[in-house]
Amino acid sequence: MFDYDIIVIGGGPAGLTAALYSARAGKKVLILESNAFGGQIATAPRVENFPSAETTGAELADKMFAQATKHGADFDMGTATVAQAENGFVVTTEYSSFTAQAVVLATGVAHKKLGVEGEARLVGNGVCYCAVCDGAFYKDKSACVVGDGNSAVQYALYLADICREVHLLTMFDKLFCDKELSDRLRADDRIDWVQCVTVSEILGDSNVEGVVCRGTDGAISYIDTDAVFVAIGQIPNNDSFANIVRLDENGYIIAGEDCHTSCAGVFVAGDCRTKTIRQCATAVGDGAVAGSEASRYCNDR
Amino acid sequence: MFDYDIIVIGGGPAGLTAALYSARAGKKVLILESNAFGGQIATAPRVENFPSAETTGAELADKMFAQATKHGADFDMGTATVAQAENGFVVTTEYSSFTAQAVVLATGVAHKKLGVEGEARLVGNGVCYCAVCDGAFYKDKSACVVGDGNSAVQYALYLADICREVHLLTMFDKLFCDKELSDRLRADDRIDWVQCVTVSEILGDSNVEGVVCRGTDGAISYIDTDAVFVAIGQIPNNDSFANIVRLDENGYIIAGEDCHTSCAGVFVAGDCRTKTIRQCATAVGDGAVAGSEASRYCNDR
Repeated sequence: MFDYDIIVIGGGPAGLTAALYSARAGKKVLILESNAFGGQIATAPRVENFPSAETTGAELADKMFAQATKHGADFDMGTATVAQAENGFVVTTEYSSFTAQAVVLATGVAHKKLGVEGEARLVGNGVCYCAVCDGAFYKDKSACVVGDGNSAVQYALYLADICREVHLLTMFDKLFCDKELSDRLRADDRIDWVQCVTVSEILGDSNVEGVVCRGTDGAISYIDTDAVFVAIGQIPNNDSFANIVRLDENGYIIAGEDCHTSCAGVFVAGDCRTKTIRQCATAVGDGAVAGSEASRYCNDR
Repeated sequence: MFDYDIIVIGGGPAGLTAALYSARAGKKVLILESNAFGGQIATAPRVENFPSAETTGAELADKMFAQATKHGADFDMGTATVAQAENGFVVTTEYSSFTAQAVVLATGVAHKKLGVEGEARLVGNGVCYCAVCDGAFYKDKSACVVGDGNSAVQYALYLADICREVHLLTMFDKLFCDKELSDRLRADDRIDWVQCVTVSEILGDSNVEGVVCRGTDGAISYIDTDAVFVAIGQIPNNDSFANIVRLDENGYIIAGEDCHTSCAGVFVAGDCRTKTIRQCATAVGDGAVAGSEASRYCNDR
């Protein structure tokens, strides 16, 4: 009657865990992913804070994907929208359309852009958002990292092993990351930490050639570089679900730890919901809850 | 001034993750365990529902312990009590006494046992205490569920989607669960409800082969089965913390997903707090939150 009991939209740790729990509960499950399975964690050079795993993000993501599909979850590619249909939901992608009794939204978050001249034009030609994906293209070259949180410092440390020189550009004279990471950054003399600057332009014709920085004192400086890795935070991408679930003012899907949304039958898991701490460990916690609750919802009908 | 920044009481997945997050945040951390590191999951013969890991519970627990201690967490054995002391806490065990700025309670729960012949010997080989954890191991097989409350009925309904046959064994001719659940149970002809019996023995050499039941009329009966899911309750073990944090009527520590208790500086993680779904995946989510929040509490002082 329905194509699936449960469709999970988003194939990162939250979605893969929701699918695993649903499949192990005997439900027919489909995972839809618009980009690459594994989500953000798959781009992490090294994961040290997922309990039991000290590995690359790609390997961790591969294991989660293999586990969910081994337990019976189907998967497909596509960017999904959701509409209410008789007694259930229709999930539509650019390629297909599926019906389901319940839906789990696990779309994660996307990288924030700097929004400066040159950034959009040079994406893929020096402007990058993922050190693991693109770091190897800049072997023995010069790279800048923009940002002051965990990701930015991790990117800088990662690129220091690959690039000839690494500049970390921060808005203030402090970092907003784990102490362990800031200690490592301060001890690493391969990294040039440029404090109290914002990037005002990225230069280059067909490839990045440099960045223009403005200091908090107004002084303009220029750094000759081959790549700009932007690590300034994340934005949710839930606007296309605003027809079906309530979002908060920042675009996160409103839900508590029970992972119930404002729409019966639609659940949410991971970074895309309202919560304080967005970690791989909290994403899988949500996945377990959302998968269990969606299965129970199907049983209760 | 303090012996530790943060003392984590309980060395299961929640406590080990809280310690990992605290240690990586640069805090001096001690984990105290009264029994065996790893908690409940360490006794699971096989874990299939912890994202990325398909392994034994013991190996999963070992990895979590190794990871927390590698990142700098100290550990010690002992049954702990907590008292407020000047500007912090004193944690006392039968062997030692330590001061700390903050405490994370992660004491878990214990499943109530039937206490019958065969139960202890066949744990993990047919005797189970969690349908979500272990139900999938008995696909197309026969299972008994023992109990008459919400968990028991949920187990029976959950297993009916997976197993060839399900017997629900209750002490009386009634259920002590939500009406919605009892309605569903009565309507589900896949479940054989065996009333007015107690299990007097679990049979089997290396695996469960059957159960011996005694009726309230004294009659002895026998059920051929591959698994016995015991769902007669869980017991939290928080009475000794009632001096410092508020407990609910069942003995769970009252807290939401932010893992804050009624006492500033005391946090809680995992199965021992008020929550709906108690899984290893949700325990590590709590651990990440409690470790982060406890570290932030120390930084903010």
